[in-house]
Amino acid sequence: MNFSSRLIDDAVSEFSRLPGVGRKTALRFVLHLLKKNQQEVQAFGDAFIRLRNELKYCRDCHNVSDNEVCEICSNTNRDHATICVVEDIRDVMAIENTGQYRGVYHVLGGIISPMDGIGPGDLTIESLVKKIQEGGVNEVIMALSTTMEGDTTNFYIYKRLKDQTVRISTIARGISVGDELEYADEITLGRSILNRTPYENSLSHK
Amino acid sequence: MNFSSRLIDDAVSEFSRLPGVGRKTALRFVLHLLKKNQQEVQAFGDAFIRLRNELKYCRDCHNVSDNEVCEICSNTNRDHATICVVEDIRDVMAIENTGQYRGVYHVLGGIISPMDGIGPGDLTIESLVKKIQEGGVNEVIMALSTTMEGDTTNFYIYKRLKDQTVRISTIARGISVGDELEYADEITLGRSILNRTPYENSLSHK
Repeated sequence: MNFSSRLIDDAVSEFSRLPGVGRKTALRFVLHLLKKNQQEVQAFGDAFIRLRNELKYCRDCHNVSDNEVCEICSNTNRDHATICVVEDIRDVMAIENTGQYRGVYHVLGGIISPMDGIGPGDLTIESLVKKIQEGGVNEVIMALSTTMEGDTTNFYIYKRLKDQTVRISTIARGISVGDELEYADEITLGRSILNRTPYENSLSHK
Repeated sequence: MNFSSRLIDDAVSEFSRLPGVGRKTALRFVLHLLKKNQQEVQAFGDAFIRLRNELKYCRDCHNVSDNEVCEICSNTNRDHATICVVEDIRDVMAIENTGQYRGVYHVLGGIISPMDGIGPGDLTIESLVKKIQEGGVNEVIMALSTTMEGDTTNFYIYKRLKDQTVRISTIARGISVGDELEYADEITLGRSILNRTPYENSLSHK
């Protein structure tokens, strides 16, 4: 496409760098911005620049934070002896939204993926190991995705922590609530039978 | 969703103002930006601010332009006696991409839509009428969409121009090249029979 304007071309190129945005969608975004007034567009552009320049990461859990220590880590009502290990901040938000977890988090910033050139050194695993070594932590809950990379990362962290006096668990895998058995994949269904739970447990969730 | 950071919340809100972008997609965009370095994010934000502040509109055809007169209007090889009237700059790009049109354009900046509070005065219709009154134009090609609003706009412009010595035409409506007749809607098929063209014309396009 020829946009007959270098400025439009630049803006379209920038938008189309976003995941899942092609040049047609990018152009739609640009035309939308052109209908806004100057202050609105200034606020739009500034939000991202400010985000990148001012956003901090929590010293303890590596979650994003406006302060040195994030709201979750600085909350004394939360259980600091239970750490949930997640891939990125989206997972923190997902778990927080359930309202079922009262512990703290540890954000790895990715998972081990040799294909993408991401090794253990690129993640915050050392900081997790150090936290466990310092003591005071009873349980580490691994909440990574069940991909090859997730399993590798789980195993790596397990190996690093297994000599410490800390319980290591993973979140339960099984049939989703509301799902029908006949459509569930075999591996999930198989695991859900192996890892069956006492019926009384399911009553207490009601 | 609670993002535990005002900066992320702001950035997500800004992205979710874009058409078709919800808060989940916006968050995906934000996390993508967080992986970029500072210069890249600066360039990203600046592109939109610069676009809004520096973009000009062509004095003659109201197309976007980096200069006072756009590349199409200032091109002496183009036929300035034929004006194609379109809704917005996307239509200019679409027609330019066909490589079939050698005339110039007139960008209305929208179509008459009382529902959205857009009247003839909000569009560049006066400037089109003035251009025709000044003479030198043989034909005006209406290339608006065939919605109620498009038809209203067509009719309004037709009424304003019908006393001038200028030919007014609309782009052909019919079955798309490659489409099968059985799936075409009745109105399009009906029009394509009424407005049938000599067989020789279709040969010359090959």
